[in-house]
Amino acid sequence: MTYLLGIDGGGTGCRAALADLNGRILGIGKSGSANVMTDMDMARGNIMDATDAAFASAGIDKSHVGSLSAVLGLAGANVGDNAANLKASLPFKDALVLSDGLIALQGAIGNNDGTVVILGTGSLFIAREGDKVQFAGGWGFKVGDLGGGARLGRHLLEETLLAYDRFRPASELTQAVMQRYENNPHNIVRFAHAATPSDFGTLVPIIFDYAAVEDAVALAILQIAIDQIEQGLDTIMSARQTRLSLLGGLGPLYEKRLSARYQEKLQKPLNDALAGAVQLAVLNFASKSAEYIHV
Amino acid sequence: MTYLLGIDGGGTGCRAALADLNGRILGIGKSGSANVMTDMDMARGNIMDATDAAFASAGIDKSHVGSLSAVLGLAGANVGDNAANLKASLPFKDALVLSDGLIALQGAIGNNDGTVVILGTGSLFIAREGDKVQFAGGWGFKVGDLGGGARLGRHLLEETLLAYDRFRPASELTQAVMQRYENNPHNIVRFAHAATPSDFGTLVPIIFDYAAVEDAVALAILQIAIDQIEQGLDTIMSARQTRLSLLGGLGPLYEKRLSARYQEKLQKPLNDALAGAVQLAVLNFASKSAEYIHV
Repeated sequence: MTYLLGIDGGGTGCRAALADLNGRILGIGKSGSANVMTDMDMARGNIMDATDAAFASAGIDKSHVGSLSAVLGLAGANVGDNAANLKASLPFKDALVLSDGLIALQGAIGNNDGTVVILGTGSLFIAREGDKVQFAGGWGFKVGDLGGGARLGRHLLEETLLAYDRFRPASELTQAVMQRYENNPHNIVRFAHAATPSDFGTLVPIIFDYAAVEDAVALAILQIAIDQIEQGLDTIMSARQTRLSLLGGLGPLYEKRLSARYQEKLQKPLNDALAGAVQLAVLNFASKSAEYIHV
Repeated sequence: MTYLLGIDGGGTGCRAALADLNGRILGIGKSGSANVMTDMDMARGNIMDATDAAFASAGIDKSHVGSLSAVLGLAGANVGDNAANLKASLPFKDALVLSDGLIALQGAIGNNDGTVVILGTGSLFIAREGDKVQFAGGWGFKVGDLGGGARLGRHLLEETLLAYDRFRPASELTQAVMQRYENNPHNIVRFAHAATPSDFGTLVPIIFDYAAVEDAVALAILQIAIDQIEQGLDTIMSARQTRLSLLGGLGPLYEKRLSARYQEKLQKPLNDALAGAVQLAVLNFASKSAEYIHV
């Protein structure tokens, strides 16, 4: 008897699921940040901590670690040699190191054809049709990630300064932002100068809150983002597809604002990314009949 | 007998003009960077070096430095205590420390009413009517400086990545940018991650070059910038005004692309910013009749 392992790791934390060969989850463990882009050693440490915790949760001795077959979905795994370097340092029998997007896709749409847009601080499009998986978008908030939280927040600060200069109309939202920065535009400039993507993202809730009460600036910012998201969908999601899920913290917030042609294809995600990792472990390591083709 | 001094200082260098009490320029000196935002001591050192060089150029002994009345137009002088701190450290009899924008305005429009837009790496609007001077825009390229070179370059990289993903149409310009980054979008992301405003600005020439041959992406990027510039002018430039000058490295490039209603108000700048500093020195320190009101 041996076990399967699914890992879902990113900047905010790492989760591990220990499963039997049918994909039934036996135990789940959690740990800290596992971003192989920013700190490979810490990522490896937290992956092993979460794995140990999953063994403990399942009541199974962790001495089985060497016989595990694992699928790891990790932020930054698709960049350079990150996946290969991590894989070489892991104690598992088998390991498939994928981007976090691929396990999110599998979790959300299962073995169906379909498309997901992961809308968090950034944004990423993934479509699967048969054994073909296509990625688009991402690229970081400076010159990409359209529709993501960092871009929304940055856009709101720009609109607020334009309203301050009376170049564009103010609204209750831009006035609320000015108050947040003590009515001093230089405070906005200072904040923006030092802001991380997450810092810009802290402005997202106020945008959706004011959009809910029809604030003109909030609605305009969101409409631009929705047009950009749908421009991506028009490209990546074939007209035949009937399954679209918006994932990430902003996914549910955008759903009701999509155009009718995409609203009608929206489906709740079937499962989360961790379940997706376990499914991919079954498909790759336990199933005789299906071999998952990854890009 | 005493002398007047005009100083034009910014990140790329410092110029000093020694003049008589009528504003006739007797000698000009140059030195290095004088940005009081980034390095106050270096700025002060280069201001004095340029002043010494102006004395030398005029063949006048620099022992007169303590009797000078000076107007200094300096990048960053309008932020916090920069102007007051610099002034306290200068050996001149009188000194008026202004933003670089104000001496550029005076140089360009003289004592007339009018509006200037300074379009370099950033962008800044200044309008004067009678004794009232109004500033708008600026704020840095992260959440402002619309129409400036950093914003143009950043926009081009974003469009190039959108074309790479086939979210938006490619053009010869986006293909040329891809080639510049070895057809690897990750190279664009890396560049953008580390880019200074000036780095983004290095993409400006290619935009205007391709716009000149009607490249659709180049034209679209410039049209957005022009709409933003004119939105600013619609706000800051009163309909009565008949004098508009576009300054900075990008000013002449934008001129022929303005709408007719602003084209007809375009006037070549009367003088440069250094001459503007000398004029303001005459107005403030030598003229009995006129007192220049600054903001």
